Amino acid sequence: MQFNHHGYVSENPRIKPAAGIGIDRSPNLPETMDVLIVGSGPAGIVAAAQLSVFPEITTCLIEKRGGRLELGHADGIQARSVETFAAFGFANEIIDEAYRITETAFWTPDPLAPEHIVRSRVTDDDPQGISEFPHLIVNQARVLDYFREFMGRQPSRNAPYYGYEFVDLTIGEGEYPVEVRLRRSTGEREGEELTVRTKYVVGGDGAHSGVRKAIGATHQGKISYHAWGVVDMVADTDFPDIRTKCIITSNQGHILHIPREGGYLFRSYVDLGRVPENDDHEVRKTPLEEIVRRLNAIVAPYRIVPKEVAWWSVYEVGHRVTDRFDEVGLDPDMDREARVFICGDACHTHSAKAGQGMNVSMQDSWNIGWKLAQVLRGYSSHKLLRTYNAERQQIAQDLIDFDLSWSGRMAGNTPDDECIEDFYVRTAEFPAGFMTEYKPSMIISGRARQELATGYPLGKRFKSYEAVRRCDAVPLHIGHQHEADGRWRVYVFADAAAPGEDGPVTDFARWWAEAPDSPAVRHTRPGDDLNTLFDAKVIYRQPHRSYDITDVPAGFRPKNGPFQVEDWNQAWSAVPGDSIFGARGISENGAIVVVRPDQYVADIQPLTGTAEIAEFFDGVFDLTD
Amino acid sequence: MQFNHHGYVSENPRIKPAAGIGIDRSPNLPETMDVLIVGSGPAGIVAAAQLSVFPEITTCLIEKRGGRLELGHADGIQARSVETFAAFGFANEIIDEAYRITETAFWTPDPLAPEHIVRSRVTDDDPQGISEFPHLIVNQARVLDYFREFMGRQPSRNAPYYGYEFVDLTIGEGEYPVEVRLRRSTGEREGEELTVRTKYVVGGDGAHSGVRKAIGATHQGKISYHAWGVVDMVADTDFPDIRTKCIITSNQGHILHIPREGGYLFRSYVDLGRVPENDDHEVRKTPLEEIVRRLNAIVAPYRIVPKEVAWWSVYEVGHRVTDRFDEVGLDPDMDREARVFICGDACHTHSAKAGQGMNVSMQDSWNIGWKLAQVLRGYSSHKLLRTYNAERQQIAQDLIDFDLSWSGRMAGNTPDDECIEDFYVRTAEFPAGFMTEYKPSMIISGRARQELATGYPLGKRFKSYEAVRRCDAVPLHIGHQHEADGRWRVYVFADAAAPGEDGPVTDFARWWAEAPDSPAVRHTRPGDDLNTLFDAKVIYRQPHRSYDITDVPAGFRPKNGPFQVEDWNQAWSAVPGDSIFGARGISENGAIVVVRPDQYVADIQPLTGTAEIAEFFDGVFDLTD
Repeated sequence: MQFNHHGYVSENPRIKPAAGIGIDRSPNLPETMDVLIVGSGPAGIVAAAQLSVFPEITTCLIEKRGGRLELGHADGIQARSVETFAAFGFANEIIDEAYRITETAFWTPDPLAPEHIVRSRVTDDDPQGISEFPHLIVNQARVLDYFREFMGRQPSRNAPYYGYEFVDLTIGEGEYPVEVRLRRSTGEREGEELTVRTKYVVGGDGAHSGVRKAIGATHQGKISYHAWGVVDMVADTDFPDIRTKCIITSNQGHILHIPREGGYLFRSYVDLGRVPENDDHEVRKTPLEEIVRRLNAIVAPYRIVPKEVAWWSVYEVGHRVTDRFDEVGLDPDMDREARVFICGDACHTHSAKAGQGMNVSMQDSWNIGWKLAQVLRGYSSHKLLRTYNAERQQIAQDLIDFDLSWSGRMAGNTPDDECIEDFYVRTAEFPAGFMTEYKPSMIISGRARQELATGYPLGKRFKSYEAVRRCDAVPLHIGHQHEADGRWRVYVFADAAAPGEDGPVTDFARWWAEAPDSPAVRHTRPGDDLNTLFDAKVIYRQPHRSYDITDVPAGFRPKNGPFQVEDWNQAWSAVPGDSIFGARGISENGAIVVVRPDQYVADIQPLTGTAEIAEFFDGVFDLTD
Repeated sequence: MQFNHHGYVSENPRIKPAAGIGIDRSPNLPETMDVLIVGSGPAGIVAAAQLSVFPEITTCLIEKRGGRLELGHADGIQARSVETFAAFGFANEIIDEAYRITETAFWTPDPLAPEHIVRSRVTDDDPQGISEFPHLIVNQARVLDYFREFMGRQPSRNAPYYGYEFVDLTIGEGEYPVEVRLRRSTGEREGEELTVRTKYVVGGDGAHSGVRKAIGATHQGKISYHAWGVVDMVADTDFPDIRTKCIITSNQGHILHIPREGGYLFRSYVDLGRVPENDDHEVRKTPLEEIVRRLNAIVAPYRIVPKEVAWWSVYEVGHRVTDRFDEVGLDPDMDREARVFICGDACHTHSAKAGQGMNVSMQDSWNIGWKLAQVLRGYSSHKLLRTYNAERQQIAQDLIDFDLSWSGRMAGNTPDDECIEDFYVRTAEFPAGFMTEYKPSMIISGRARQELATGYPLGKRFKSYEAVRRCDAVPLHIGHQHEADGRWRVYVFADAAAPGEDGPVTDFARWWAEAPDSPAVRHTRPGDDLNTLFDAKVIYRQPHRSYDITDVPAGFRPKNGPFQVEDWNQAWSAVPGDSIFGARGISENGAIVVVRPDQYVADIQPLTGTAEIAEFFDGVFDLTD
């Protein structure tokens, strides 16, 4: 965590000095704003949190509930989400309080007594070591709490506006072209309508999204509904895996069993089967007693006696994905401006079985969040926003396909010889959130030199590794230094030359800090520091004690803050015997790896590839309409 | 983190339900109380934090400042302190924001150009692997913030009362035998005196402690003062180790150089030499410019140009230890009751060079804190409190001896052939805080069987190791589960028998849960859960997948909370290939390791040693006066 360069910080350094809109933020919803975000769930709050970093942007997050979410909803947190929490500064805290999944037990009918279940297999949760982050289960309400806390600590001092629901919108002209009708949903003035004007709208308003309807987006494909009974409880039981994630298949039905945080609570998803077309929501009347009865029938010979039911629900869910994620869609004319975006359940719904909902929604939200910030801060044209639909609609389709395959197998529909346990292990990267691989676009280079850094696949998230920070000799995951601050990362992996020696690293450093075509020089505004938009780190092969920080080229020691002190935290060394260079397949000639603000690898070039780096960023920071 | 057994927790689980005094705590200082703690520094706040856990105890922490500490003071956090922070639930958070010391650089005169310094050696900070916790530097104000946050989240909802200073006390009779005169030190009513009555007083009121004077405790030994100029600054510099801890000895003087949190700030302690007896505090008039001039003279040929000085001070400090830490002292008559205790700088002062002040003070404070809780909750007689003086006065003497030796060496006084670097490495366990080894007393068994667990030295703190929690298959440091909740820990290390098999573990479990002479049965009040006073964990040799949690004897699955659900988090397995049994030298026949609420090993017995365990706890939980 870096602070104090602007003066001594005595209090919690996570609380940034208020600035801009944050200095005197009104508790009342303003009439005009830069971004209106509808819905404070995972799909809305991450965009709000990202935008809150920038006090020059007025972001308003509205929520139709009167206050904080208390209960229920999603609880599965994949490793990619924990990685995201790290970027927002609260991974360790939430890990401390969450349930951690390390293995999954499969229970199936006992071949000798098919009315009873037996444990047929236990699989490690991350056998391939996909991520250094854990797979967690924690109440969605807590995830939202942490993001809200982050928002409140940012310079903009943002907080949700509770008690407003979305009614409709129209897109017109002018500085605030979107006119949005809202309705007060709680309190004394409940039902009262009001109109606000905004530059952009993000609809994170769930499966019944009003924003989706307002832009005329529609579901693709066939919709078939499946019903689930879900119960959170503390119980008296002799089922030995009550604190283990289980996939239970008995001849009485199926259960997805998920232990919860705190050591006692657990959640069981009891499969209530496909909903007939003419059911008219009859299934929702299934009583708790029936769910508990089915649960016990499925886990026989074990018993699960509820001592307290914290929450329960019956819900129907279809596999659906929306045809487009903004009001423009895949129109090849990139000049068409998009003003309204939808994310999360508003665009994709599916079963809970793969534990994906909250996770994919948060990645939607981060994706649109940093892009809106880049555009609203005046660094990119509106074309950047069109990449949101292009990137995330595909992800949603992949998710639906995966979930259909997975839930089919859980229900016993196996299209091939692969057993469910093998399928689960083989496909683990997808549900962990790391299969996302964006295609070339204005923010994923089409000219990347993948062979120079084989361990950083282009378009996938930058997979961290440990290195040693030279100035203080602390071994750290270099990727975990990537905060959600909207900055682009430039990792300069050195060749064999020692720090300070003449060579391409030294040349690059000089170019980066001084050349007129350097992105840091060209796109940074006069008076701003060299590290305002970019975080450029150099990683050397030599052990940290073999050189001094003062040997590192000045381009990697940018002066910053009101005192213009040098930042000495940008030079790193490989860990002797466990080198990031080997682990990530870096060419012996070095490589430059460019990473987006949301942690995806955007470009890879040789150390001499300054023209290509310049060209790539000229495309990103292009302001022409 | 365990919660939810008493019902669903939706909000931050670190915030415990308010109870007792915490339900309707008045913001005004009450007239009577159980414990009055004077001073909200490290020496006061840890006792306050520990006592805050218990809503049946009224603890009042007074502070003469009008509010939170902002600046200056100690910043060195030894590994034992971070271990303590873990027990209070905030280790990860403070690690995230602190500077971490991984190595120390020694700078000495260049033999070729003695007017210049050169780096003569770099040593690892913890070469022996003394602790899994890091060595940190962080503003004392932040340490206090975290403890204050902990206090406010406990059932008693405790908070400091600012603006009161201690004047005097008298010890009389009755339920609240100590009458304390206080004075308002800030605000409109500044200077106004008031009287409160309390059962106990803890004086954490610093080097000029009024509480110490009130009980007539005096300093032992010769006092010689040494002066230091200390500066916290952000600077422009070419000194390459500005972000490394350095011990700098030049022919111009000595510096202890300590980087600070946040990546830019650092602190230099510039040695201003021994203070002549007739100096009359003249040295304190040394201006900042002179300190900066000396600093630069010492680090030549490098330069350090301050860009911002956050704080600076000149102070004199003597090596002093007080003859006793309560009003009774080492009187062999254990029946004499002690009512007033002093801790921290009130009892021991020394140089900052070994970075010990805050650390030893916090251990003083935790020591008296849990003992007061145990007595005030009615589980032990006042005799327990006499162990505070006996245990901590010795530690303070050891500290002074170490610091004299260490600062002497830094000043060039080497009594033997050992160079300063070798001394530093050899003695690292002391400053890390792990040399404390309490002697047998009513809370350290005189009959312990050390040979059964050679890696848990009696009287030293329980050194954690990883094990796998059976119920959820999570590998965790078992010692980090020891929260500052006032409970005694009983670690049952199994013999070779598998879980559930007949044998001494199963016998012990039955005895522990059922026998009339079991401490858990005898000392737990009717209606309280078996784990109210004791946290008994079993650790098996077998891999966790080789047995079920339901095979574990019921004595290690205590029913608890309003729903009387079983706690399944108490059974553990060794990590295959990295066994806690081997690492901690556990006998093949198993062992029982008893650990105090402040994490010190109190007893070691064989699995069959129920009589000895019973006898030990009968001594601890003895209520006879």
